[in-house]
Amino acid sequence: MDQRIHEHAEVLVDWSARIEAGDDVVMRVDEGAHELGVAVAEKLGERGANVLPTYNSDEVEAAFIRGHDGDFDQDPDFELEMLERADSVLSLRGKNNTAEKGAVAGDKRASYKKSRTAIKARRMDTDWVSTMHPTRAHAQNAGMGYEEYKDFVYDAILRDWETLADEMANLKALLDEGSEVRLVKAETDLTMSIEDRTAVNSAASVAYDSHNLPSGEVFTAPETTEGEVYFDVPMTHDGARIRDVHLTFEGGEVVDWSAEVGEHALEDILTTDEGAKRLGELGVGMNRGIDRFTDSILFDEKMGDTIHLAVGRAYSSCLPEGEEGNQSAVHVDMITDVSENSRMEIDGEVVQKDGRFRWEEGFEG
Amino acid sequence: MDQRIHEHAEVLVDWSARIEAGDDVVMRVDEGAHELGVAVAEKLGERGANVLPTYNSDEVEAAFIRGHDGDFDQDPDFELEMLERADSVLSLRGKNNTAEKGAVAGDKRASYKKSRTAIKARRMDTDWVSTMHPTRAHAQNAGMGYEEYKDFVYDAILRDWETLADEMANLKALLDEGSEVRLVKAETDLTMSIEDRTAVNSAASVAYDSHNLPSGEVFTAPETTEGEVYFDVPMTHDGARIRDVHLTFEGGEVVDWSAEVGEHALEDILTTDEGAKRLGELGVGMNRGIDRFTDSILFDEKMGDTIHLAVGRAYSSCLPEGEEGNQSAVHVDMITDVSENSRMEIDGEVVQKDGRFRWEEGFEG
Repeated sequence: MDQRIHEHAEVLVDWSARIEAGDDVVMRVDEGAHELGVAVAEKLGERGANVLPTYNSDEVEAAFIRGHDGDFDQDPDFELEMLERADSVLSLRGKNNTAEKGAVAGDKRASYKKSRTAIKARRMDTDWVSTMHPTRAHAQNAGMGYEEYKDFVYDAILRDWETLADEMANLKALLDEGSEVRLVKAETDLTMSIEDRTAVNSAASVAYDSHNLPSGEVFTAPETTEGEVYFDVPMTHDGARIRDVHLTFEGGEVVDWSAEVGEHALEDILTTDEGAKRLGELGVGMNRGIDRFTDSILFDEKMGDTIHLAVGRAYSSCLPEGEEGNQSAVHVDMITDVSENSRMEIDGEVVQKDGRFRWEEGFEG
Repeated sequence: MDQRIHEHAEVLVDWSARIEAGDDVVMRVDEGAHELGVAVAEKLGERGANVLPTYNSDEVEAAFIRGHDGDFDQDPDFELEMLERADSVLSLRGKNNTAEKGAVAGDKRASYKKSRTAIKARRMDTDWVSTMHPTRAHAQNAGMGYEEYKDFVYDAILRDWETLADEMANLKALLDEGSEVRLVKAETDLTMSIEDRTAVNSAASVAYDSHNLPSGEVFTAPETTEGEVYFDVPMTHDGARIRDVHLTFEGGEVVDWSAEVGEHALEDILTTDEGAKRLGELGVGMNRGIDRFTDSILFDEKMGDTIHLAVGRAYSSCLPEGEEGNQSAVHVDMITDVSENSRMEIDGEVVQKDGRFRWEEGFEG
């Protein structure tokens, strides 16, 4: 077995999920994540935890939904009670066919998903972590050879997370203290108020309230937004390719938009509901192990020297007690490259320029 | 997908497990049983059941046990409570390497198994069924090509079970009424008392208290045994090959034994404890879909025109209320071919001759 799989398992179990002796751990193994499952099980054994491996196969799920007629039972007891007693749920993603989920009618899938609302909520109440085992299907999706893709994935996952968490803490402190963020680059001059908002240091560990491995971003929830922004990183949303998005904000709301490719898909997103025209997230990617875009939001939005903004729902962890923040059925991230000819200011002070932060060597403020 | 996989799923769900709408079904998917898992999930959906697929990988389990040090937690709550609420547990066997379980130290595996006593008992309290998806590893074990092996497995599984159950009911009735069974063939003349014992019509369905698919045998528990018997069907027990076994019984106990190959292994079995020298089972294989020996007891003992005897533990379902039957830590089946030059008598009347039963065409009593 590739030694990096063992290292991945160790990061997941120790840094991300903080597994301790006696923990009851549900390990959700995707069809293509078998090898990571073996490595994680060994690590869980070493830590003295208990493991219940479940089989999280898109094909099995699609077949079940396809076969089913009429209403699904709401939150079957045996699964809910199992999760009620679980300390951690580790999702080991790794598909053999990234298109499998599309093989089921959307309304049936939606009704199945709805029948599992409490199950999902309960899973989210555990110390859950979601990670990804590189498969050929994911490599294909990224347009990369398998060996090259494995290098890419492990470069993103096998970081010195402690050091990165410390570095990200710098930015979190500045965002927590600051009132206003300004982003300036080509075709972009955007001002976002962040007064009283709290930034999350997303360091790929439940200890940081961060549940994805890899992670490596600091994000907060803007309150209002003025100006224009250009997203030059390609994206795919619900199967639709969207390219070169321009948004113009007035009074916190998108008043004008365009896209070179997929403008209809963009319009669908922005007109979902009232909150879909307002920002829910400002995120700063700080994982320099991710060195290219692969059209997978799990990786793309964490990439060093990028900034992403999401229209739609805000995360409650960024909001002051009692405040609801932006509400929406959607949360769609769009990414802009800030590695060159760009700057981010907080309260008028330049914090990041051409990808360099002010605490880094090479920063020229 | 091979159409027979869908048929297998249908037999399993409808005939064997009797799944109904609303049933909570745990589906244990072996590493190599993915395709059957997909087909069974679809069928469970069609029946309106709920499914929780667990990943029953020998490699994952071996890694967990290998990693673990010290005592295992006894019957972890989250798994036990899940099974407490399950109606059925379907085990879809299908290994990618039949030698994997051997990769863990025996004492560690035994202590892991012991830590899961209540979990296993609870699983056995559900309407459980265990079946097998043909894999290349199992084909290899059987010394057969993959296509040929699939034909073999589906011939055994895709029977007209209702008709076979009716036919097996004939033999069950004779055994239930009878007091004594005599088996005569080359180097064999064995008499077993079965007074007050109840035969099980093992028709591969929970409705018949039969939990393996395929099945196709009628078995009971002899009380005492006299005479000698020759087992001409090859077998492997705990990795040891055993061939051409002769046993001589006096007063219900083995007093003399020999084997052409594996006599030490045979001796180990017979000297395990006091009950290991007495018969726990007399079984009559009646599944004519199984046409050859593959050194897998799941199939071999069900083969038509064979009779098997097990030394060791008797099944309680065969015993009169309040009677304990033969007790032992072992239950080891040995098989003899009765297709030619043989007869089985019940109370002096010939019931099976040269493989034909008295209710069949071609029977010459």
